Amino acid sequence: MQKIVPNISVDCVIFGFDFKQLNVLLVERKLQDEKTGETLIDDWTLTGYHIFEDEDFDTAAARILKGLSGLDNIYLEQFYAFGKVSRVDSPKDNIWLKHQHEGFSSRIVTVGYYSLIDNSTVTLQLQERNVKWFSITDLPELGFDHQEILNKALEKLRSKLRSEPIGFELLPEKFTLSQLQKLYEAILGTTYDRRNFRKKVLQMKYIIPLNEKQKAVKHKPAQLFIFSRDVYERTKRERFDFSI
Amino acid sequence: MQKIVPNISVDCVIFGFDFKQLNVLLVERKLQDEKTGETLIDDWTLTGYHIFEDEDFDTAAARILKGLSGLDNIYLEQFYAFGKVSRVDSPKDNIWLKHQHEGFSSRIVTVGYYSLIDNSTVTLQLQERNVKWFSITDLPELGFDHQEILNKALEKLRSKLRSEPIGFELLPEKFTLSQLQKLYEAILGTTYDRRNFRKKVLQMKYIIPLNEKQKAVKHKPAQLFIFSRDVYERTKRERFDFSI
Repeated sequence: MQKIVPNISVDCVIFGFDFKQLNVLLVERKLQDEKTGETLIDDWTLTGYHIFEDEDFDTAAARILKGLSGLDNIYLEQFYAFGKVSRVDSPKDNIWLKHQHEGFSSRIVTVGYYSLIDNSTVTLQLQERNVKWFSITDLPELGFDHQEILNKALEKLRSKLRSEPIGFELLPEKFTLSQLQKLYEAILGTTYDRRNFRKKVLQMKYIIPLNEKQKAVKHKPAQLFIFSRDVYERTKRERFDFSI
Repeated sequence: MQKIVPNISVDCVIFGFDFKQLNVLLVERKLQDEKTGETLIDDWTLTGYHIFEDEDFDTAAARILKGLSGLDNIYLEQFYAFGKVSRVDSPKDNIWLKHQHEGFSSRIVTVGYYSLIDNSTVTLQLQERNVKWFSITDLPELGFDHQEILNKALEKLRSKLRSEPIGFELLPEKFTLSQLQKLYEAILGTTYDRRNFRKKVLQMKYIIPLNEKQKAVKHKPAQLFIFSRDVYERTKRERFDFSI
């Protein structure tokens, strides 16, 4: 059996978009007193655990996510390391850590990873513990400093969505401007005026209108668009330098 | 004396701009065999060391930078954690670590911090070890995985300069467009066509032309500009959302 590093862990913030809202993947942390049956802990955490002695951060993140949720081949990106001295010091955290493993350090630093996936296309393989998607606007109580880690990940995700075309990976190849607007609104937690949004998007050379409309929809079919990564890359320098 | 954490360090990548080029602050790593006088190690590293048991990452970074260079009150931003299993495993790194402290772990992870300062305005207070600015286009051999850490920091700095107005903090309040161009060219490691650069900048509402020219210069005095953070913040949302 591989030895864990007692004072270093990774935590994965898996954001899932389901075309309606932004969700996050959490694991239940539940513990009852073996004698009295009293509930000692009943909250949720991010998917995380300690790294192994012979394992780098990226490998650990992928292994831990897979072990807790069954999710495999998810692109994970490191976003921040959390090192506050008292980050796992609450009484509940103490009980949990002792219950899990006697060898854990009393001070643990963690490296945060995040990802954005279409959570309607993946299946969670439930393991020993309960794993669930929660809307980020309706979260349960989180253990450790995981609310802080989640907030930081959300900040990074939003900043990335504003500066890189990561949103298109969640849309069908041909999409409507309403779908695009919905995606940005859900992730950025805001609303846009429909007309201004369309005006802005239509200026982007890499979002290309097709001579094609939606089919088999109940409402009036809307025009379809595609995202051209090719045009995006070609015009990148021109747009990015001094997009201050 | 405070106890160090044997397997966790921080490293600071201090970028300095001197109105000509982009520099980075390095510490000499020199070691001679006490008996034979033979040079065992003669290279450079970033300013870094281990964190204390009761110290968070931010505090450690500021303390270590001050201890090695005398630099105080520098805004440091965490940018990445480095955890490759063999990152401090070279023979030279092994000798150095043993020489420095018997208690170090053989596997050390490090949290990277970076900063961009006007290095012409700060004075290095040389401590026990030699500390110097090096042009990033003319670097000496670096110990550990510090070349990799430096490359990552540079990538983050460039990305930040392209999406936030961090450059203006290095310019005088009133600056010329040539000075602004020089700054972007030095940091991004590129050159711009003067006319295109001016055209692009003049579209930015938050770079405001003054009815004022340079004084006491040998060449034809150029027009002066100021950066308005106020206008920048006011027009931020409009610009940032979907600057994809």
